[in-house]
Amino acid sequence: MIYLDNSATTKPYKEALHTFMKVNETLYANPSSIHSFGGKADDLIKRSREQVADLLGVEGSEVFFTSGGTESNNLAVKGTAMQYKNRGRHIITSRIEHPSVKKAVEDLEPFGFSITYVGVDEDGRIDLKEIEDALRDDTILVSVMHVNNEVGTIQPIREIGELLKDRPKTLFHVDAVQACGKIPLDLHGAGVDLCSLSSHKIHGIKGTGALYVRSGVRLSPLLSGGEQEGSLRSGTENTGGIAAFAKALRMHLKEREESLPVMQEIQGFIRDGLSKLPYVTVHTPEINAAPHILNFSIEGFKGEVMVHSLDQHGIYLSTTSACSSRQHKPSETLLAMGVSDMRANSSLRVSLSYHTTMQEARMFLETLEREIRSLMKTMRRSR
Amino acid sequence: MIYLDNSATTKPYKEALHTFMKVNETLYANPSSIHSFGGKADDLIKRSREQVADLLGVEGSEVFFTSGGTESNNLAVKGTAMQYKNRGRHIITSRIEHPSVKKAVEDLEPFGFSITYVGVDEDGRIDLKEIEDALRDDTILVSVMHVNNEVGTIQPIREIGELLKDRPKTLFHVDAVQACGKIPLDLHGAGVDLCSLSSHKIHGIKGTGALYVRSGVRLSPLLSGGEQEGSLRSGTENTGGIAAFAKALRMHLKEREESLPVMQEIQGFIRDGLSKLPYVTVHTPEINAAPHILNFSIEGFKGEVMVHSLDQHGIYLSTTSACSSRQHKPSETLLAMGVSDMRANSSLRVSLSYHTTMQEARMFLETLEREIRSLMKTMRRSR
Ligand SMILES: Cc1ncc(COP(=O)(O)O)c(C=O)c1O
Ligand SMILES: Cc1ncc(COP(=O)(O)O)c(C=O)c1O
Repeated sequence: MIYLDNSATTKPYKEALHTFMKVNETLYANPSSIHSFGGKADDLIKRSREQVADLLGVEGSEVFFTSGGTESNNLAVKGTAMQYKNRGRHIITSRIEHPSVKKAVEDLEPFGFSITYVGVDEDGRIDLKEIEDALRDDTILVSVMHVNNEVGTIQPIREIGELLKDRPKTLFHVDAVQACGKIPLDLHGAGVDLCSLSSHKIHGIKGTGALYVRSGVRLSPLLSGGEQEGSLRSGTENTGGIAAFAKALRMHLKEREESLPVMQEIQGFIRDGLSKLPYVTVHTPEINAAPHILNFSIEGFKGEVMVHSLDQHGIYLSTTSACSSRQHKPSETLLAMGVSDMRANSSLRVSLSYHTTMQEARMFLETLEREIRSLMKTMRRSR
Repeated sequence: MIYLDNSATTKPYKEALHTFMKVNETLYANPSSIHSFGGKADDLIKRSREQVADLLGVEGSEVFFTSGGTESNNLAVKGTAMQYKNRGRHIITSRIEHPSVKKAVEDLEPFGFSITYVGVDEDGRIDLKEIEDALRDDTILVSVMHVNNEVGTIQPIREIGELLKDRPKTLFHVDAVQACGKIPLDLHGAGVDLCSLSSHKIHGIKGTGALYVRSGVRLSPLLSGGEQEGSLRSGTENTGGIAAFAKALRMHLKEREESLPVMQEIQGFIRDGLSKLPYVTVHTPEINAAPHILNFSIEGFKGEVMVHSLDQHGIYLSTTSACSSRQHKPSETLLAMGVSDMRANSSLRVSLSYHTTMQEARMFLETLEREIRSLMKTMRRSR
């Protein structure tokens, strides 16, 4: 199997799974229980929170665990809107956000919120000027992703933070689900108020995510109840998932240190190989792009058909994001970049992990080339 | 260790953990990915959904997976309110609901909803008449738990369903988190529209729950995004957690068949033993009570003190529910039953599993008696 769909989800680290198992076997008590068995589970969560905070360069009291990136994004967007709706009801976001941000802001429209969507250039990058122009007195939130999940473009987070520096009433939310462990982010330095992470995108385990909430920022909770996670996110804590997340984050950041150059080399190798193939256009820009994503299209071929062809050879990749792909929609990010509908419908996304090897990249390219040529023959014949 | 805190959380079944591990090792693909690896994960979720539905006697299309009981309750309550707010803004619930229902309805008040809280009698049971009297033309939801988590009282779900039979505009939500696998519930027969379950209360794994949504009922989602779970609950699915939930539910229901009489016998044994101890009053009623919970108080002793005393002997139980206990609040259920503040502050909850043995029950009673006598001596001396 050659797994090139790491932006959809990653294979859990053995160590993260081991942590998860151990916690579930030996520390399964409810962390809210006041006996010592519960206390031990609670301590583990505290330690995990401090570890995650340390790795992110923030305080433990600023880290809140959730069930995943989607919940973190919904909590950041809706939680801000409901908490600060009397300050204003204007939100700025981009045209290329993940559906969990896009739909979260749409959900707010019936509550009197108006949304400004800023566009992107042909590289998928947001224009700072557009954000600046969109800012109003009643703008309570700017939500922009760090790395786009469909093409890998890095957004100018630090610059947006700079723009918002003197606007304490406008919160800045960054969806860093794809960026985490690939592109560093100094949350305090960049003036980020809220930042979403997801464990299963960094070889942790599905069912856990986190939201960084800068000290001083308050959010209206989505899930209320037992007042866990500082009342921001009620529900019995997934102790094992939380501990495994802390472990995965540490391992992933360490792997970055050691293996980023290899990943970049492999990405470059695939890019070169793709550019030599007939009918192929690479959509991921050469600069300001994450090291793990390559989006390209093959003129005249439906992306889906190619996914299924490669599948037969045990090679797994996506058309666009996993969720849009099932809906058979063309990539909205590509459309926003000005790519034609036809090209957007024939796009493919390769996404690497730090474990992807050059050998796998070579086999992928060879198989892709063979498949293009064979499909071309079939198509010519069927004309 | 004698673990008597199974209402707070349970020890995961080895088999459920094994399923979880296997899925995470071999089927970690994103179920929304269109390649065959994703397809296999998706198939497993489909099978798990059918299994859960079968076990509940409902259709697969009526089962939605969430991150736990708290999310299921919030989704049921807020999702109903937001979806049907133009029908009416009145909700009926009881004074003894879990905080994830109680706070969820409170969260709706700023949106113009009014809430009627029905009380309970000295056994912790809701008066049907009170619900009947509270019903209004604009009542869109009645939310009542099946088994109370603090004292174990069973509520008259079937009778409430009967009451609502001819009111198609009033949805009926049942929090069955504590009842599941202890007290059977015919969801269709009882006219239930929405029913919450939690995996970690039935020896599944924390981070997964389910909401039954009767066919035809629509809910406004809390978490929007990639449109997973029929758009009712977006977010990459926790495939392993879902498969482990299906497994745990099956095993738990089977254990009920085999071990319910033993559990009842142990509960009776503990009840008898408690009734012979000085200063002890049992608050769990003898009829209409679940087999796994026994709530009692020891006059003059703070519940917390006794929890810590027993803790020293490796015996784990709770004062009230795990979440209230950390907040050092007296049990609201006991107060609603008319128990005095002082008694409520000295209450303890024993909660059994199908694995609790008679030997453990005996050791618990012996240790409790010894602790009461020794604490009494200390107290006398310190006077
Ligand atoms: C950029 C981005 N944000 C948010 C999410 C949602 O995260 P999760 O899958 O944990 O719900 C994803 C992945 O699906 C993503 O790529
Ligand atoms: C009756 C009841 N409802 C809901 C919940 C919440 O479930 P969870 O712990 O899965 O969030 C609990 C347990 O905490 C409960 O006992």
